[in-house]
Amino acid sequence: MSEAAVRVIGLWPSPFVIRVLIALKLKGVEFEFVEEVVGRKSELLLRSNPVHKKIPVLLHHGKPISESLIVVQYIDEVWSSGAPAFLPVDAHARAVQRFWAQYVDDKLPWAIRILKGTDDGGMEQAAGQLSAALQLLEEAFAQLSQGKRYFGGDSVGYLDIALVSHVGWVKAVEKIAGVTLLDKAKVPNLVAWADRLCAHPAVVDAIPDADKFVEFSVTYGSFSKPINAPAK
Amino acid sequence: MSEAAVRVIGLWPSPFVIRVLIALKLKGVEFEFVEEVVGRKSELLLRSNPVHKKIPVLLHHGKPISESLIVVQYIDEVWSSGAPAFLPVDAHARAVQRFWAQYVDDKLPWAIRILKGTDDGGMEQAAGQLSAALQLLEEAFAQLSQGKRYFGGDSVGYLDIALVSHVGWVKAVEKIAGVTLLDKAKVPNLVAWADRLCAHPAVVDAIPDADKFVEFSVTYGSFSKPINAPAK
Repeated sequence: MSEAAVRVIGLWPSPFVIRVLIALKLKGVEFEFVEEVVGRKSELLLRSNPVHKKIPVLLHHGKPISESLIVVQYIDEVWSSGAPAFLPVDAHARAVQRFWAQYVDDKLPWAIRILKGTDDGGMEQAAGQLSAALQLLEEAFAQLSQGKRYFGGDSVGYLDIALVSHVGWVKAVEKIAGVTLLDKAKVPNLVAWADRLCAHPAVVDAIPDADKFVEFSVTYGSFSKPINAPAK
Repeated sequence: MSEAAVRVIGLWPSPFVIRVLIALKLKGVEFEFVEEVVGRKSELLLRSNPVHKKIPVLLHHGKPISESLIVVQYIDEVWSSGAPAFLPVDAHARAVQRFWAQYVDDKLPWAIRILKGTDDGGMEQAAGQLSAALQLLEEAFAQLSQGKRYFGGDSVGYLDIALVSHVGWVKAVEKIAGVTLLDKAKVPNLVAWADRLCAHPAVVDAIPDADKFVEFSVTYGSFSKPINAPAK
């Protein structure tokens, strides 16, 4: 049997992998998930992303694409007729979505790593900065969604994909570190957005329950640096 | 007199500002350069980029766009008829240019900050990692340019803009730290590319001589953290 036209090299707990899976599912693209073994790097991964040696990698007819937000844009551009575009048509609106997606990856992953104990740092400070970031995203949601369901309006967009991919770990570190982050009193619209998007058919299977992330963290804690700090 | 339709808030020594100026000049867009005062942040900057409070900001009819690589993409999308597109049409080729542009911003700025003394870190290690990054970019040039003048082929592209904006500081830290980085023996094609692109009419005025960067570093060394570590 020949290889699938579209393959994703990854591990299920990586938010950066999760976003690629969601993007493919939203576009209705069939793909094969090539799961790495925790703590190792396959020959295929090393050959496909020799510069960073990090997941995820999308292989499209054998050609590798790395860096998850770049992969999401690639998927949007290649399967442009499969679903509503992730990025809006208006250039300013596109820039705004890109700005906030980059903000998400600048602020969330390091705080999450500290809160689950895989990076050194002050837990209280990390929780505070993560809460502050979610607060700003709550405000951004009001501006960008304009009363609709998603950051992208009526359909799931680029920033929705970028942010929701971190929600599994945000909920997990709430349990691990005993903090409240997705607080209905403080970020009500973001909490409602997360509930809504996590139940979306393209998302529901890509983001397991928080308990599964917690279990992974307990089992593979010492391996999680290379897994959860991959290519942005 | 009314405000210019296109304004750039910045400071001349910032590579992130330089790339925005180059992108506008390549597209033949007239703009006003609103220069910040070193070590302060103007009201206009704070209002235009309240999240990061960093230069550059592009103001287009008063609407702010931040994060330099996002601004370059915005310019490419808005002034699409002004010059050859910065990003290629082919989705995979676009992803490759985006990958390397992100690589440039991941690897070069921190090493440059260490070598000019505005960040703590081992000088030798920083020089080694910067040289290694330039070596990889030399190899990428061979692949991407396909024997033509630029990473973008016949015309200046997204990665050309992203990388050349750091060349002024690379040359300056060669003098400041007494190291050779753009070494003709090791990265001959990159050196030739830098010479060629720095002489391009859209680039020549945007990147002053290395001595001017050195002088700036001597004069404003203590201020250069907030200036040279702005929005990517």
